Amino acid sequence: MMMMMWDLFVAQSIRDEDGEGKGKKEKQEYLEEKYPNHPLLPHDLAKKAINYQAANIVSSSIQPLVMLPVLNYIGENVGPEAKIQWVQKQAGKGFAALEKLLKDYAGKYATGDEMSLADVFLAPQIIGLSQRFNFDMSEFPLLSRLNEAYKHVAAIQDAMPEKQPDFPIN
Amino acid sequence: MMMMMWDLFVAQSIRDEDGEGKGKKEKQEYLEEKYPNHPLLPHDLAKKAINYQAANIVSSSIQPLVMLPVLNYIGENVGPEAKIQWVQKQAGKGFAALEKLLKDYAGKYATGDEMSLADVFLAPQIIGLSQRFNFDMSEFPLLSRLNEAYKHVAAIQDAMPEKQPDFPIN
Repeated sequence: MMMMMWDLFVAQSIRDEDGEGKGKKEKQEYLEEKYPNHPLLPHDLAKKAINYQAANIVSSSIQPLVMLPVLNYIGENVGPEAKIQWVQKQAGKGFAALEKLLKDYAGKYATGDEMSLADVFLAPQIIGLSQRFNFDMSEFPLLSRLNEAYKHVAAIQDAMPEKQPDFPIN
Repeated sequence: MMMMMWDLFVAQSIRDEDGEGKGKKEKQEYLEEKYPNHPLLPHDLAKKAINYQAANIVSSSIQPLVMLPVLNYIGENVGPEAKIQWVQKQAGKGFAALEKLLKDYAGKYATGDEMSLADVFLAPQIIGLSQRFNFDMSEFPLLSRLNEAYKHVAAIQDAMPEKQPDFPIN
């Protein structure tokens, strides 16, 4: 499983046989069906739905709103301070929803004691926001705990952007 | 299948046994696995991946950027004209990606001659943007053709917001 999570977590782009690049979410869905022996999703339907929900909160309600083109637009047209406030507000709303969603399911990781789809989406979002914006995680105790747990997952640490061969040095 | 698509297309919220509301994308995923006899996804893996991609372009790269909270923010902090330009630019990027993605797969509908997941995401996005913003679809011939096709799908027409019992009259 870790290898597959890796493919997903590290990859900036994967290409299938006909050379078509894919986004992160569809990569996961594609890999999951192409490699059914390495599940990122639990078999239990309700728990699977929680994983979908968590992944989708990140990919539809947080990430698109805090990505660079949006932040640059706000920085240029409203102001640099507004940019930070925007991130705190939008990511804060998403994180609050995730805290509520995961509270009855979280174990060592987001939905139990095994890494699963939810973690694959949560880890880069939480790590990225804390590093790039000194995002204050103190209101989000569950996500803060997951953030700590991710520090001990070698696969996540090895997948950090700065460890990749094409990470820009300057 | 139509009934299920309808559940999905119409629903502002569905609730499972424990009363948890869900977002649109996870509703689809949940319904698909709960009612496997009414597939929204083709069996062919590559075509399925195209459906995932199209759905995700809508749910992660278009919808979050053109939703009301974002547009209100831009309207208030940058200006009303900026709001329209923003929608044209962001939705335009997403629509251009969809044109390219679907060009080798589209039939009567997005990925063939049957309605599928891609259509369930595309229809409300295309219809919503054309109605709310007079969005100029002329650069997007394939999506314009789909938009015409959707006008003849009774289920889509019946699911229009103004046909719902809780549609605000004023």
